Amino acid sequence: MRALVKTAPGIGMELVDVPIPAIGGRDVLIRVHHAGVCGTDLHIWEWDAWASGRLKPPVVIGHEFAGEVVELGDHVRREGLFAVGDLVTAEGHIICGDCVPCRTGNGHLCVRTQIIGVDRDGAFADYIAMPASNVMSLGGVPTDIGAIMDPAGNAVHTVLEGGEVPGSTVLVLGCGPIGCFAVGVARAAGASLVVASDFNPVRRALAIQMGAHHVFDPATDDVVARIRDLTGGLGVDLVCEMSGHPAGHAQAFAAARPGGRINMLGTPSRTTEVDFARDVIFKGLTLYGVTGRRMYTTWIQMRRLLASGQFDPRPVITHRFPLERIADAIGVIKDGTAGKVILEVAG
Amino acid sequence: MRALVKTAPGIGMELVDVPIPAIGGRDVLIRVHHAGVCGTDLHIWEWDAWASGRLKPPVVIGHEFAGEVVELGDHVRREGLFAVGDLVTAEGHIICGDCVPCRTGNGHLCVRTQIIGVDRDGAFADYIAMPASNVMSLGGVPTDIGAIMDPAGNAVHTVLEGGEVPGSTVLVLGCGPIGCFAVGVARAAGASLVVASDFNPVRRALAIQMGAHHVFDPATDDVVARIRDLTGGLGVDLVCEMSGHPAGHAQAFAAARPGGRINMLGTPSRTTEVDFARDVIFKGLTLYGVTGRRMYTTWIQMRRLLASGQFDPRPVITHRFPLERIADAIGVIKDGTAGKVILEVAG
Amino acid sequence: MRALVKTAPGIGMELVDVPIPAIGGRDVLIRVHHAGVCGTDLHIWEWDAWASGRLKPPVVIGHEFAGEVVELGDHVRREGLFAVGDLVTAEGHIICGDCVPCRTGNGHLCVRTQIIGVDRDGAFADYIAMPASNVMSLGGVPTDIGAIMDPAGNAVHTVLEGGEVPGSTVLVLGCGPIGCFAVGVARAAGASLVVASDFNPVRRALAIQMGAHHVFDPATDDVVARIRDLTGGLGVDLVCEMSGHPAGHAQAFAAARPGGRINMLGTPSRTTEVDFARDVIFKGLTLYGVTGRRMYTTWIQMRRLLASGQFDPRPVITHRFPLERIADAIGVIKDGTAGKVILEVAG
Amino acid sequence: MRALVKTAPGIGMELVDVPIPAIGGRDVLIRVHHAGVCGTDLHIWEWDAWASGRLKPPVVIGHEFAGEVVELGDHVRREGLFAVGDLVTAEGHIICGDCVPCRTGNGHLCVRTQIIGVDRDGAFADYIAMPASNVMSLGGVPTDIGAIMDPAGNAVHTVLEGGEVPGSTVLVLGCGPIGCFAVGVARAAGASLVVASDFNPVRRALAIQMGAHHVFDPATDDVVARIRDLTGGLGVDLVCEMSGHPAGHAQAFAAARPGGRINMLGTPSRTTEVDFARDVIFKGLTLYGVTGRRMYTTWIQMRRLLASGQFDPRPVITHRFPLERIADAIGVIKDGTAGKVILEVAG
Repeated sequence: MRALVKTAPGIGMELVDVPIPAIGGRDVLIRVHHAGVCGTDLHIWEWDAWASGRLKPPVVIGHEFAGEVVELGDHVRREGLFAVGDLVTAEGHIICGDCVPCRTGNGHLCVRTQIIGVDRDGAFADYIAMPASNVMSLGGVPTDIGAIMDPAGNAVHTVLEGGEVPGSTVLVLGCGPIGCFAVGVARAAGASLVVASDFNPVRRALAIQMGAHHVFDPATDDVVARIRDLTGGLGVDLVCEMSGHPAGHAQAFAAARPGGRINMLGTPSRTTEVDFARDVIFKGLTLYGVTGRRMYTTWIQMRRLLASGQFDPRPVITHRFPLERIADAIGVIKDGTAGKVILEVAG
Repeated sequence: MRALVKTAPGIGMELVDVPIPAIGGRDVLIRVHHAGVCGTDLHIWEWDAWASGRLKPPVVIGHEFAGEVVELGDHVRREGLFAVGDLVTAEGHIICGDCVPCRTGNGHLCVRTQIIGVDRDGAFADYIAMPASNVMSLGGVPTDIGAIMDPAGNAVHTVLEGGEVPGSTVLVLGCGPIGCFAVGVARAAGASLVVASDFNPVRRALAIQMGAHHVFDPATDDVVARIRDLTGGLGVDLVCEMSGHPAGHAQAFAAARPGGRINMLGTPSRTTEVDFARDVIFKGLTLYGVTGRRMYTTWIQMRRLLASGQFDPRPVITHRFPLERIADAIGVIKDGTAGKVILEVAG
Repeated sequence: MRALVKTAPGIGMELVDVPIPAIGGRDVLIRVHHAGVCGTDLHIWEWDAWASGRLKPPVVIGHEFAGEVVELGDHVRREGLFAVGDLVTAEGHIICGDCVPCRTGNGHLCVRTQIIGVDRDGAFADYIAMPASNVMSLGGVPTDIGAIMDPAGNAVHTVLEGGEVPGSTVLVLGCGPIGCFAVGVARAAGASLVVASDFNPVRRALAIQMGAHHVFDPATDDVVARIRDLTGGLGVDLVCEMSGHPAGHAQAFAAARPGGRINMLGTPSRTTEVDFARDVIFKGLTLYGVTGRRMYTTWIQMRRLLASGQFDPRPVITHRFPLERIADAIGVIKDGTAGKVILEVAG
Repeated sequence: MRALVKTAPGIGMELVDVPIPAIGGRDVLIRVHHAGVCGTDLHIWEWDAWASGRLKPPVVIGHEFAGEVVELGDHVRREGLFAVGDLVTAEGHIICGDCVPCRTGNGHLCVRTQIIGVDRDGAFADYIAMPASNVMSLGGVPTDIGAIMDPAGNAVHTVLEGGEVPGSTVLVLGCGPIGCFAVGVARAAGASLVVASDFNPVRRALAIQMGAHHVFDPATDDVVARIRDLTGGLGVDLVCEMSGHPAGHAQAFAAARPGGRINMLGTPSRTTEVDFARDVIFKGLTLYGVTGRRMYTTWIQMRRLLASGQFDPRPVITHRFPLERIADAIGVIKDGTAGKVILEVAG
């Protein structure tokens, strides 16, 4: 089969021919229809410090995908968990199930997590083998949408953690694909005011398409002052920090209302100076670090939000390429002109 | 001023002339624009066992209203809490602030609650005096909508308690005005499936207008079987029990999913036989009894849902009468042809 | 090996010789040291309606146990999950891992639960095969205590659900073994007032040994009045309903404070008349049905409470018998003279 | 009456004669028996940047106290809220009751908070006037203990926020008086492992007296490595950050388990560099900033923990002085030889 493989240390990926993966008794083999290209894949392409420290080539890249079940392991068939022909997506974090986080409802924080496309072979290929316990039926969601349920799930996790979105005020800092998804999820979940902020006008336009009531450009707008205006001076109930930048953190602390919450997903590449007295303690704030998706509460919420049409991520999907045009896919992500980029693998 | 008063034990109310109420230092005087007629007012009109045991005539009736601030107590003026001309509504439960429930976030369960229009003079009158702490600015919501924020708040409390509505499945049993409001609130709060049930076709039609995905008639539909069909056999995440009837309770228990929740607002007039083993313990259900509105979290959520346009209760308002036509207002409630009935008092 | 087997429909169990069970790749084989005898085992012995409707003889009985790992499946060895010689206990509910409850943190409500000693072979035997995912290291807890972590876990689940025990007031209705454990857990978890109630003086004495501040006899004490006296008229924060009796339910509703919580574990054999208006809605109560143990949050909490010495269940263990004296074990449970009864299988 | 007054900008306080304060209709006048000296009072004594920016002399100092009710406002008498002779303490944050935080269960974050002894006259005096809504009956707790319920309440808030202390593992960083109280509260609330850390041997000794299972000296112990040893490599469930120091923050992040919680009370005087990616996001941590005490849930929990004897703060009280020896009280706090210091005002 075809697969995009990091064959050796260094920049780029190669489209090569590799064997179709074998499956174990608890696995299913999935014919990949669509796959999503993630910022992580850009890091891997670029072979940055993180990537070169973690990946052991050769590895098939890609962790966001959806497709069709084509073969079942013995246990899966016996238990009737899936059938050949089922359209599915999958959680790309393979977890141990035995550590304390796994056994106490925090599987997304498993101490032995392996990520497909990073620690083991991934989804930028014609086929992928996945443990059935990681696989989710699409329930009517098409595979091009299914292919982005991993990052959409990041947004669902970020927006819904804390549980008080209906009737609340939400600020989304950073309008990359996950930020834009967060705007749509916040609207779908009943937020009464959703404000988004990004330097990039393409991304601000996407945020508006996803339902943001207001978008700001931090280069020219005083985001915190505007938030105060919009909230009677109080600040927002929830900040979704998607920028991963110290300036975003500073805005988050200043824009959150007393007793509010900051859910942080954007991964900073450096440290931030925090005035804990002024910004956390005296404000009574709650901060929460978002890793992946709650397994599988987030997936089930997300599937319902997608299948019901409440949350429509399609405006964010700006580019579609075949597998062999991975360089173009990486290019549009790198130059900031893209929302979400999808690889059309089959079908 | 004019006021609808239960002047003496017995059926009915009288429109009589009474003095404009005096206000204390922490009170405001409100010119009533609109008032809502509640099932409770019907009980008072009919002078049933509950009413005759609780009310001490003469009492001005009515607890749902909105209007304009026309006079301020000293403390209110000094603190700038309200200004003459503000459009406002108010929580009708006057609480002590000193009991353990009041001091631990459960003011709606205050052991010394006094209800306007029941335990003290109410709102079916040209003017009402209210403690400023009970008064809420309308924030742009018009007074005819403001007049029904009391029952709409019952719906908000019922739907949002438990905190996991976005992406969830909700069954509303009983489509009186509060049930219909609950349908709209559940949709506004991001429920992915909202099903409602009532014997009355007028009410089912209102539930559809409020956004129910499906409505059932328990006389002809097997509600529980239909719920199972719609939820893959699992049952719904949340049942809002608005019927107050043992048959509704039975449906609620059967239709809730394992680990689900039943929030009960409908007040039964008799007992229900419950199979706690089958229906609560083995299903791991949570039941919650809804009294009033959380003070004032519910009000703030509700004002935002109304002001943003996410939740539009207007389809439920089927009748409007002037104060002197209270008998007609009571009549349409009694004969089941009404949704919500409003008295147009001024303006 | 020896095993107590329900060999055919009817009263009793037989101690017979059966093969040591074979294990799969994800299983461990455990040499049973101690096993607990549960009320469920009494139902099975008596072959009552529930038992005859559910069990398919022959079945090895027993679901509470602890012992020593003597053999590892391939996957277990490869992953290093357990080692031969480890002292362990196990959750007796074998769950599917694939249904919605399993995938959303409610594995204890799995729709395909199989219980050892009921639906498949159990622990009243020299050896038992268990999936490794159900097995818990004892972490220094001895096997006679480990053998009762199943019912002690019921108590932990009942007491801790809701999360506000420290500094709270707790009423335990019914002082069978799990009720007595609940008393001890409530004390260990920082309840400031723990009151217990039972008709049986032996059980009341055990409840005192477990730390109850007060015990009442419902035959002679007005439990609700006494609770009011002890709580300044307010009622208790939490009722643990362990009696499974309509009279217990009535006391629970009356004794809970406004806004309080009733966690129900006692399984009634018949229905209860409930006045939902007075007892649930106007009081703003929360009810929660307790099934099994949260997997595995409850187990980890329990192991720590036991290993630290905070919670010492030993006073409740009143009788110990060898496997062949199962009839005596059943006898002391039946006649009400026992707390918890343990079978000494090996060691 | 006598009062310790910051009469003018600059170091120190003066014991002067001032009039007994007048009370309004909703106030009570309290004869102060005991008062606690807080780090805040040291800042005020020293007239540091914070103090000189906030206080407007003359102000009577002191915000921790307990005493006897000697006079009632009209409203208080009419409602029977308190009686002359009641022994009471009081929350020193006077809140507005009207802002959004006040109206949504976050009164401790009121945007108009006034603190006694800082923004208005305080408790280092023979008498203090307090709004009845801030006053708490001692319920049998003696006034010397009642005088420290303000800082003990900080500890209760810090330890119990998050709600999962029973059976958990807790690290207290910083063993000043509130840290030592936190150790005692964590033990009372059922934590299975309580570890404390401080450079000061006097404070470590107090932490042991309060029940810490282990105390570490960050000068010589690798606190994070020791925590890993004690928790099977996982880290603790809850860190109570009482040090207010960047080094404490670093230990908190490293010592918390994946999915764990850091409740921060120690007020830093400078910023901290935070690696949000490594320390918050990838660990899935929750941080919470602790301001004051939840009004009045914290007070009610605390009164029960004190009255039941579960939490005994007395070992932390190392010094007692009469009002006129305030300089000595400040001195022992400043030189680090004190735990909690109490002023004996009357009785």
